[in-house]
Amino acid sequence: MERFQKTLDRILPVNGQVMAKTQERLDDLTKPRGSLGVMETIARKIAGITNEVKPGIMKKTNILMAGDHGVVEEGVSAYPQEVTPQMVMNFINGGAAMNVLSRHAGSELIIVDMGVASDLPDMPMLIKRKVARGTANMCKGPAMTREQALEALEIGIEVVEECIDRGTGLVGIGEMGIGNTTPSTAIISLYARRPVAEVVGRGTGVDDGRLLIKIDAVKRAIEINKPDLKDPLEVLAKVGGLEIAGLTGVILGAGARRVPVVIDGFISGAAAVIASQIKPVVKDYLIASHLSEEPGHKVMLEHLGIEPMLYMNMRLGEGTGAALAMNIIDASLKILNEMSTFSDAGVSEATDKEIPQ
Amino acid sequence: MERFQKTLDRILPVNGQVMAKTQERLDDLTKPRGSLGVMETIARKIAGITNEVKPGIMKKTNILMAGDHGVVEEGVSAYPQEVTPQMVMNFINGGAAMNVLSRHAGSELIIVDMGVASDLPDMPMLIKRKVARGTANMCKGPAMTREQALEALEIGIEVVEECIDRGTGLVGIGEMGIGNTTPSTAIISLYARRPVAEVVGRGTGVDDGRLLIKIDAVKRAIEINKPDLKDPLEVLAKVGGLEIAGLTGVILGAGARRVPVVIDGFISGAAAVIASQIKPVVKDYLIASHLSEEPGHKVMLEHLGIEPMLYMNMRLGEGTGAALAMNIIDASLKILNEMSTFSDAGVSEATDKEIPQ
Repeated sequence: MERFQKTLDRILPVNGQVMAKTQERLDDLTKPRGSLGVMETIARKIAGITNEVKPGIMKKTNILMAGDHGVVEEGVSAYPQEVTPQMVMNFINGGAAMNVLSRHAGSELIIVDMGVASDLPDMPMLIKRKVARGTANMCKGPAMTREQALEALEIGIEVVEECIDRGTGLVGIGEMGIGNTTPSTAIISLYARRPVAEVVGRGTGVDDGRLLIKIDAVKRAIEINKPDLKDPLEVLAKVGGLEIAGLTGVILGAGARRVPVVIDGFISGAAAVIASQIKPVVKDYLIASHLSEEPGHKVMLEHLGIEPMLYMNMRLGEGTGAALAMNIIDASLKILNEMSTFSDAGVSEATDKEIPQ
Repeated sequence: MERFQKTLDRILPVNGQVMAKTQERLDDLTKPRGSLGVMETIARKIAGITNEVKPGIMKKTNILMAGDHGVVEEGVSAYPQEVTPQMVMNFINGGAAMNVLSRHAGSELIIVDMGVASDLPDMPMLIKRKVARGTANMCKGPAMTREQALEALEIGIEVVEECIDRGTGLVGIGEMGIGNTTPSTAIISLYARRPVAEVVGRGTGVDDGRLLIKIDAVKRAIEINKPDLKDPLEVLAKVGGLEIAGLTGVILGAGARRVPVVIDGFISGAAAVIASQIKPVVKDYLIASHLSEEPGHKVMLEHLGIEPMLYMNMRLGEGTGAALAMNIIDASLKILNEMSTFSDAGVSEATDKEIPQ
């Protein structure tokens, strides 16, 4: 609890003055003002986060947290629960999409067992911080105790702090956990105050029958748990998940150390929703990556006030969208650092005085 | 004319059988079927283009063609015409956004003077193929003669063939030319059969007054030239531009050699519209990159039947969006080549028989 509270206290607003100076620099580069759109927004945002007018390329880490979900016994997923540990082994062996994409991004990939339901072997690449062997079935009561949720949060803070201590300056988040779009649906339905049927999706690809089961499961979980929206830790414990709690901790921990966090899809978005309910100012530390196929993801990003840059119809999770976005983030920082200014290059500026942004 | 006709004859449909085999491979990788969305589409498309089931990462080249436009005397741009040669010098000196982004993409950048209105010095990095010192003012008659348009087309074919001979397997296209959103607006207005006011935009950033001037200029150009839509070469000559014609040649030349082409924004999109009017099957060789701020770009991509993956509110041109997309294209090919299959990784498949795509 102490680590948690200290972390929250350390999350401060981003630096608007630095951002204004960065925008001045961007406006002086040999391009029409604002013409690089989101690339300029990213460069400016990272400047505000890091307190540097011209931040350079940073060491990147993708944190992938895994956990199981008791709610799968309701039949909400197309895949059996054994896939969670199997995919963790696949990550360790380097054969999953996220391995390919984090290598491609030049980003370190860290796998954390936050609550896989089965035992995993000791392996150098696996951080074993299992809080429980999966959550309880949220259709029958709270998914976690408040203590478990808090423990998972603090592990997330600890994991990201260790990364930052080793030099990480940009964090991507992702997850693996059969059934985890179901608690994420509950979280966004509650905080965006939208009916479950409007924000639910097919996850890894359930058919119409399972989709109805899933909607019903989320409704029952909300009904039986009646979480108090003013207490985001309670929402997280009652209808969340261990990997979602861990990622919430990662976001808060990164914010406390002024490190930007790249959000992936629907589940890491749910973690961001909880994090921003706990500490609203942490929103400014988030960078959206892609818009997932999951219909609730759009609602989630609107709720967070961040805009995705990649429209790829992806719905895999793992942090794959965040990894893809890292290349664009690097590119945005290179724009800020490497382009010539109008005066350096001897290029004439616009003859119109006012240029629409 | 001979090179042009031979090139058209060599553009064949992509290979559907190879694409089906590639999709089989994608479906066997450790992820829910279809869950990588556009990345899968890209991998499959490149397989069909190259005739290889598992195409690897290819050498990349971005071709940036520059040209001036007589229509600028109508006052359609916020920037003076001298910016075209100034920006060409900036490209040669490595200080423009496109230099930064092509370096970032690991892509070679080639600059071609197709028709800059002023003289440019001899420089090793500049390919000087000036067809004319800018186009004529299309509000007063044809922008080019048919012979000029054809000459520019054939130069584009020649330039891309040289790149492919040197090993290029993926081409990005881009442009520089003050005023060139104006002819591009005319082209898409004609072929999408939309009113000029619906497809016009602010280009590099004109104010409301200039926007009205621009709409009027496009309308007058169409009215005075009355181009025959069944003759795309005539449309190109009358209301196009030298760099647009060159890029049209690049697209056709790449298609003839079974090399995919990444389209950038509004102007390279106009070249793609002309190319697909000349030879419809070449559409299957195109990969869209970003959706530009220019309102007509969406209409253009819909007309071409290709979908952008990047939503970055960019409106710079030069090929910047295409360069950014190259990283995602590389990532898509790595997914195809480097991921484990379900059987290799010992991961269980979905229990549902039918998985919605």
